[in-house]
Amino acid sequence: MESSIITISREYGSGGREIARKTAEKLGIPFYDRDLIDKAAKESGFTPEFVAEREQRLGSNFLYNFALGGIYGLAYPRKPEMKELPVAEQIFLAQRKVIEDLAEQGPCIFVGRCADYILRNKPKVLKVFIYADPKARICRAVEKYGQMEEQAEELIRHIDKQRRLHYEAYTVQEWGDRNNYHLMLDSQAFGVEGCVDIICKAVLSLDKKPSP
Amino acid sequence: MESSIITISREYGSGGREIARKTAEKLGIPFYDRDLIDKAAKESGFTPEFVAEREQRLGSNFLYNFALGGIYGLAYPRKPEMKELPVAEQIFLAQRKVIEDLAEQGPCIFVGRCADYILRNKPKVLKVFIYADPKARICRAVEKYGQMEEQAEELIRHIDKQRRLHYEAYTVQEWGDRNNYHLMLDSQAFGVEGCVDIICKAVLSLDKKPSP
Repeated sequence: MESSIITISREYGSGGREIARKTAEKLGIPFYDRDLIDKAAKESGFTPEFVAEREQRLGSNFLYNFALGGIYGLAYPRKPEMKELPVAEQIFLAQRKVIEDLAEQGPCIFVGRCADYILRNKPKVLKVFIYADPKARICRAVEKYGQMEEQAEELIRHIDKQRRLHYEAYTVQEWGDRNNYHLMLDSQAFGVEGCVDIICKAVLSLDKKPSP
Repeated sequence: MESSIITISREYGSGGREIARKTAEKLGIPFYDRDLIDKAAKESGFTPEFVAEREQRLGSNFLYNFALGGIYGLAYPRKPEMKELPVAEQIFLAQRKVIEDLAEQGPCIFVGRCADYILRNKPKVLKVFIYADPKARICRAVEKYGQMEEQAEELIRHIDKQRRLHYEAYTVQEWGDRNNYHLMLDSQAFGVEGCVDIICKAVLSLDKKPSP
């Protein structure tokens, strides 16, 4: 399989993270979720020992290299000009570098963090968006994530808004707009396993199509 | 295969009709496109002989029954109250009846004509939306549909607008809104054959998932 770099964006409570994890298992490739990328990016800029200590968990020497190489390709320790940027900007740039470096290393799956936009010029990256009916997402938030039922609806709105604002702050695209994705799936219709099957088929179809 | 009723909505020039036809061939089920449904609906209300004469082309006796049974289940000839509705409304109601009746007869594929909305309460109907980058759609309009290159961009905008207005006039939904579809596919990314493969996989996944 040639092209197994996959980016998965998702509405909160749609099961996108579980779908990404199981797709990665099925394809036998690594899976990087938001928390992992956030942590890598934040920590590598500030306490490289922390990252180096944990790089085994990523199954590659990337984070160690990243910590030594620094953000933006600057040599470690970070050059003073990085400090002039707002912290949120520094973190985004660090995340971007993390995602670009991981994508260079071979097939993998990214969840969230504008990876679809960051890798927009890389050929044969499959960009997926997972969504579901709000009622189904409330159920999932309560049953799987242990949220309180009376707060789940508000939480879904709030987290989706955060994701949209983050995406739209760092890209020139609209979060959830079909034009940014190759494949959009209603996880309620197909279930987690069904979505995994469809994404694996889509990876094959993307491979088969000749490059423009 | 239990559920092979599929509705396909599509942007103009995305190849949605060809994808629908080839999916129908692969699944061995009938395929009803907009022109066929329009013709059936219009003609059956006005000149039943015309429809009866052509019913073989549909491969079922449905149109003949429809022509005899009339629009809305009224006995033929049409009752006077039908004449009180505007012609566009009569046609839509006739189309709706055509689609509902065909869907009762077994697995098939509908292209356009608000079929996703008309069949919204029928379980296990796979609702698909096909889209593509405007540049890819212009190419297709010129190369496959023989449109003039300098007019193709305007034509795409115009026809998509017509589709959107028609959809939004007869449904309470927004055309192209992901919440109305189970699966949305960028035909440029996967090609026609790739989309056919993914839709067939999605039909299987929908079948496997237990009904709520």
